[in-house]
Amino acid sequence: MTKTSPGNFFEDFKIGQEIRHATPRTVTTGDVALYCALYGSRFAVNSSAEFARQIGFDDAPVDDLLAFHLVFGKTVPDISLNAVANLGYAEGRFGVPVYPGDTLRAVSEVIGLKENSNRQTGVVYVRSTGFNQRDEMVVEYLRWVMVRKRDTNAPAPEEVVPPMAAKVPAEALILPAGLDLAGYDTTLAGSPFRWGDYQVGEAIDHVDGMTIEEAEHMSATRLYQNTAKVHFNQHTEGQGRFGRRLIYGGHIISLARSLSFNGLANAFKIVAINGGRHVAPTFAGDTVYAWTQVEEKMEIPGRGDLGALRLRTIATKDHACVDLPCKGQAGKDYHPAVVLDFNYTVIVPR
Amino acid sequence: MTKTSPGNFFEDFKIGQEIRHATPRTVTTGDVALYCALYGSRFAVNSSAEFARQIGFDDAPVDDLLAFHLVFGKTVPDISLNAVANLGYAEGRFGVPVYPGDTLRAVSEVIGLKENSNRQTGVVYVRSTGFNQRDEMVVEYLRWVMVRKRDTNAPAPEEVVPPMAAKVPAEALILPAGLDLAGYDTTLAGSPFRWGDYQVGEAIDHVDGMTIEEAEHMSATRLYQNTAKVHFNQHTEGQGRFGRRLIYGGHIISLARSLSFNGLANAFKIVAINGGRHVAPTFAGDTVYAWTQVEEKMEIPGRGDLGALRLRTIATKDHACVDLPCKGQAGKDYHPAVVLDFNYTVIVPR
Amino acid sequence: MTKTSPGNFFEDFKIGQEIRHATPRTVTTGDVALYCALYGSRFAVNSSAEFARQIGFDDAPVDDLLAFHLVFGKTVPDISLNAVANLGYAEGRFGVPVYPGDTLRAVSEVIGLKENSNRQTGVVYVRSTGFNQRDEMVVEYLRWVMVRKRDTNAPAPEEVVPPMAAKVPAEALILPAGLDLAGYDTTLAGSPFRWGDYQVGEAIDHVDGMTIEEAEHMSATRLYQNTAKVHFNQHTEGQGRFGRRLIYGGHIISLARSLSFNGLANAFKIVAINGGRHVAPTFAGDTVYAWTQVEEKMEIPGRGDLGALRLRTIATKDHACVDLPCKGQAGKDYHPAVVLDFNYTVIVPR
Repeated sequence: MTKTSPGNFFEDFKIGQEIRHATPRTVTTGDVALYCALYGSRFAVNSSAEFARQIGFDDAPVDDLLAFHLVFGKTVPDISLNAVANLGYAEGRFGVPVYPGDTLRAVSEVIGLKENSNRQTGVVYVRSTGFNQRDEMVVEYLRWVMVRKRDTNAPAPEEVVPPMAAKVPAEALILPAGLDLAGYDTTLAGSPFRWGDYQVGEAIDHVDGMTIEEAEHMSATRLYQNTAKVHFNQHTEGQGRFGRRLIYGGHIISLARSLSFNGLANAFKIVAINGGRHVAPTFAGDTVYAWTQVEEKMEIPGRGDLGALRLRTIATKDHACVDLPCKGQAGKDYHPAVVLDFNYTVIVPR
Repeated sequence: MTKTSPGNFFEDFKIGQEIRHATPRTVTTGDVALYCALYGSRFAVNSSAEFARQIGFDDAPVDDLLAFHLVFGKTVPDISLNAVANLGYAEGRFGVPVYPGDTLRAVSEVIGLKENSNRQTGVVYVRSTGFNQRDEMVVEYLRWVMVRKRDTNAPAPEEVVPPMAAKVPAEALILPAGLDLAGYDTTLAGSPFRWGDYQVGEAIDHVDGMTIEEAEHMSATRLYQNTAKVHFNQHTEGQGRFGRRLIYGGHIISLARSLSFNGLANAFKIVAINGGRHVAPTFAGDTVYAWTQVEEKMEIPGRGDLGALRLRTIATKDHACVDLPCKGQAGKDYHPAVVLDFNYTVIVPR
Repeated sequence: MTKTSPGNFFEDFKIGQEIRHATPRTVTTGDVALYCALYGSRFAVNSSAEFARQIGFDDAPVDDLLAFHLVFGKTVPDISLNAVANLGYAEGRFGVPVYPGDTLRAVSEVIGLKENSNRQTGVVYVRSTGFNQRDEMVVEYLRWVMVRKRDTNAPAPEEVVPPMAAKVPAEALILPAGLDLAGYDTTLAGSPFRWGDYQVGEAIDHVDGMTIEEAEHMSATRLYQNTAKVHFNQHTEGQGRFGRRLIYGGHIISLARSLSFNGLANAFKIVAINGGRHVAPTFAGDTVYAWTQVEEKMEIPGRGDLGALRLRTIATKDHACVDLPCKGQAGKDYHPAVVLDFNYTVIVPR
């Protein structure tokens, strides 16, 4: 009996199955400092406890994407250790803020299964949820991945493809309790632009580019306790499809979010991940740029102090975004430099 | 009079000499986060304060090897700045757990001296001990290093070679006060295998490999305030024996321990280091793999909730361990890929 | 209307203008751990809370240069995003110690303007001040940078070149409240040499060298939330003047300070930055060495337990400092290996 976990294969998943993931994780100011060193994020609410308290947080909450990566990392050993491809995200929502000292754990429910016609692989749909030590939801999302079968002769399960919302509607967005933007200081936050200043269809080139090193993306992925082998092992990846280590897709999401500060400094909190696609792989040495299109402006019922923006951020590699590559619809005619197409909702003071 | 410390040479050491090492160090959650980012460790007890409290710790203790590296680092400027080779470890024991906020200091006693026949170098044996701010022992170990003489004409000291135990016996192992594994959750810990599931002679291939970058091993070694020059200076090492910076051996121990999670997830605490040998040097670009053989099962007097396993973990470079390279006795017939042979004792819930 | 900040150009600055910089920053033990991992600093007062309390601090203060870099980083988006060159520092003083948990913000006042004869650029002189959450000054300094004009036809402002002191005099130095060196332990601090042991004119070769990796200097610069593009973007810098990313000059200052421990271990606190010049650029792969000349010994009125030393630390690349390169006057006849000429004042126990 081997003591080493081989991970789950396609035929190991059952509809309705609930998986309690291992490795609960206490988040600390150490994680926050590393996150800053990895991405250079400057959103004031995550950077300053004073700023955060001024608008109703108990302390500086950790970056929403750090919470997402930590929860995502926990799911990898059970869900995607034998994955061929990470196909997409939907219906992502952030719940209560995560503060240093909170301990996160993750649970996934299998909500869809679909064997591929080649009978080698199948698509697994899960709803993953991260909880804090008080069992409050901190982030949840739907994800689907293509997973290898252990035995290609194993019978196909009944096909279940779950319905998926194209976006999280305004009424489903969760705001932190006690949030009050009356004391929001736009000078300290780094930009005068409020919710009313953004227009649907407006495009923002975030200008700056950031080159990625091997030590950086591996440190990030280890920090998230994400165990996917393709990120860490040059000895095997050197002989693989790309000849090199593949960068965790979430690393690019965080880089793009950090770059987006230049133009979206007051988009201080992500409240939803409507969809996301890793269009092309990235590798050490690539320089990542990003630009954003404002897709929708959403009023939040009962809130005069803030509004939501649904954004589509496109990240590219080795290509400055002044020409707004891939302004078309998601999934079609991608410019060859595009690596990420990310659709998410932020809140901004009015 | 030079203000720069040249370190101690062989003839500077005297039997019975006690050296109080410099640079006391307060350990923080920042160190814990960096340790996670460097090795991707997933042992639940170090990752989650909630998990740790559930089994009787006051908080998440820092990784035992982080405490070891910090104490070891303090000894370097006094013991091994002029070392030619780090020859071995023995009789290592971990004492009270180290928690964030604790301040560590280190003391060494010279317990053996033996000049080499070439009269250029000699072997220095020390017992080093790390203490916390309450003067409680957190880790102690015996180490012997080959150190250069300042003056080859200096007279040889009387030869003293201290006795060394082949292993730390079960009755000498120290368990954290208050430890009670009744509440140990194997699902959260990541493996169903308990003490009773392991067999003497059983071999576990930890499967995964991790490639090391220069920035990583240097950051680790600086974090431990280890000042050995060979790890940091490409300008001189480029003209040296290997043409490159040598990786601190402890970095490989930590990598191997982290990889061992896959197969030994419930081996949640190291209680002894029985012996260790850095069989070959490692360099940036090397990919480290590991496998472990269970050498001995030890019952702990009065404890029905846990037992100890004496393990021998072998780490290799650029060679997957599916063939269990070097299954023979320590020190003989090493497979050319082997870089570390580490014999230590862990505790595991029953 | 673009949402992206282009930064200020020369003609945007006005004499007397006060700029409140964005991105307040709560400093944590995570930052302290990263700082240690980046530079391997061993000054006991920053490393050990116990040591710090023993001499009258409330806790281990963060490294003075970490506070400096964080404040400096905040000023970059407003002051030097369009800078051609960072010309110098003067009149730098450290105020109240910064402890983990403190939140820093920065303000700059424009105190000088001088258009260059080519009308393409001008020199901007600012006095920048970092404050904690109680509005206490933690660091202040004068800095002058050469900044591009947006429009070369814009009229030149009235020329104002502020007076600058050659050094901060002893009576202007600020000591932490409650500091009392009676309990200072030189063994734990790592050196027996006290203030009285240093002589004016004495030179100290710090011996060790440290090679810099891209991942390291970029992580440092992001940690400081310094947004200067030249440090991060290989895609553009590869086609630029040097063909590679330029290392933030402050990274070299911190490396030199860390190397200076070997010879100046008891110089436990920087109290002033009298002047500094980045003589030549540094790049990943360079190995930095340093040596220091004692320029002046200053008694501190009313303090028998400590004195100040004014130091000039020279850092080089790929050149060991045994020959004390550039022992002449600052700014003249620099040895080609010199990259930094830094004049600062430290306090040392008597």
